[in-house]
Amino acid sequence: MIVDPHEISAAGMQRYMLGAVAPRPIALVSSIDSNGNVNLSPYSNFNFFGANPPIMIFSASRRVRNNTTKHTLENASETREVVVNIVSFDMVEQVSLSSTEYPKGTNEFIKSGLTEVPSLKIRPPRVEESPVSFECKVNDIVPLGTEGGAGNLVICKVLLMHINDKILDQDHMIDPYKLDAVARMGGNWYSRANGEVLFEVEKPLADQGIGFDQLPEEVFEMGFSKNQLARLANIRQLPDQKVHPVKNRAEIIEMVKIMLREKDTLGAWAHLLGLIDAEK
Amino acid sequence: MIVDPHEISAAGMQRYMLGAVAPRPIALVSSIDSNGNVNLSPYSNFNFFGANPPIMIFSASRRVRNNTTKHTLENASETREVVVNIVSFDMVEQVSLSSTEYPKGTNEFIKSGLTEVPSLKIRPPRVEESPVSFECKVNDIVPLGTEGGAGNLVICKVLLMHINDKILDQDHMIDPYKLDAVARMGGNWYSRANGEVLFEVEKPLADQGIGFDQLPEEVFEMGFSKNQLARLANIRQLPDQKVHPVKNRAEIIEMVKIMLREKDTLGAWAHLLGLIDAEK
Repeated sequence: MIVDPHEISAAGMQRYMLGAVAPRPIALVSSIDSNGNVNLSPYSNFNFFGANPPIMIFSASRRVRNNTTKHTLENASETREVVVNIVSFDMVEQVSLSSTEYPKGTNEFIKSGLTEVPSLKIRPPRVEESPVSFECKVNDIVPLGTEGGAGNLVICKVLLMHINDKILDQDHMIDPYKLDAVARMGGNWYSRANGEVLFEVEKPLADQGIGFDQLPEEVFEMGFSKNQLARLANIRQLPDQKVHPVKNRAEIIEMVKIMLREKDTLGAWAHLLGLIDAEK
Repeated sequence: MIVDPHEISAAGMQRYMLGAVAPRPIALVSSIDSNGNVNLSPYSNFNFFGANPPIMIFSASRRVRNNTTKHTLENASETREVVVNIVSFDMVEQVSLSSTEYPKGTNEFIKSGLTEVPSLKIRPPRVEESPVSFECKVNDIVPLGTEGGAGNLVICKVLLMHINDKILDQDHMIDPYKLDAVARMGGNWYSRANGEVLFEVEKPLADQGIGFDQLPEEVFEMGFSKNQLARLANIRQLPDQKVHPVKNRAEIIEMVKIMLREKDTLGAWAHLLGLIDAEK
């Protein structure tokens, strides 16, 4: 299916983009207006963009429905300070509640039952329940359009980062299981990043793997998944060692798959090359 | 733990930001240089920012290690066109392989075994294996700094969106289960958005839920999780109907939790209010 932005409504385009660009991390943003009234609201058009300087951007977009903007945008513009709070699973429904369009001046901390903690460098409070909070100065606000559905980039510089000790591992790094982050998908969908869906892929070799184009053509006929082939291709050169096959073809291929799962790529290759040689 | 960006190395700050702002969606970006050489590389400092106009931003950041930039950035600057391809689980190891730093001019489609399909409006090809691809014009490139770790915003306008029919539901919307997206976490970690980790949270009431501050104080002593309390607070007003308790307190609370899970908030309240009345 092809979607042409010029031939679909803004609401339709937004639905497809929300469905496709996912999962999106959530910034739960606390801000204050010039009278000191506190506001709290979640944004998933958000990410960080470089660590030096440490820059975060979220978009407080113009509503598709009625082309109005959110209080966070007014506050960020008035007082130039925000806290970006990260969202974990055990607070997700409170965060959803904070996205209610209460009248300006309503403190969504109170409505959503989340806890204010004074920030150290700026006036808006941070969220105690969040595993990580970033105290930020607003560098710039960049409108991307004037109609409903237009983004407004709020470009923020991180002044200070708070990390709850509970989510750190023994090396004082953030443990993804303990972080237990949630992210936004399309529609009303969220996804939780924990348990069996977390997996590691070792970074590819700095000295360059052989790539798919250097794989012996025989391996494409052995029923490997593309992910398994990619693992075979991420080796600096084919090993010299070959293991002469003592099992049948299907058993060897099965064993090779297990070795790939256990990240023994060299061992997998030795058996594969032995099999290919024997079949020549 | 407090992290002050001025008191930590750029590499250290980057590690913490990668760990905390997660899961991040992945843009697998295809581009060409002025000689027509194709390049493919993944970026997770990425999101979309508004649907009208449909804008995507990814950062091809300056490497912390040696302050160099990636070929994608040079290509985007030279030829002002990119395809942003979305990444599903069954292609994740190929995508990781495409992030290898091959010499300029190397076509990572070939190295990673991914398939080029000609785009309709621009010159860089899209990735056939991707469930969704966005043909984009590069509107602007904004450097955020000059040192290692500095972001370079590549601001793109979507010209055309391709969606594989296989990921659509019967209403022609994107089905998150069929999308089977993967996202980046810190370190070598990825997370897969599928199966039991996908869940729905109904958007809060447009006409404003009562909020935590209007919950009867008794419900805070009943062992509900914060997520359950948030669901109770997302109701326009307390119902008049009360169910006189015919079971004991623990049984009623357990039943209320089940009703909340099944999204019968009105029913849950009727039993809760009956219990509170009876205990007065």
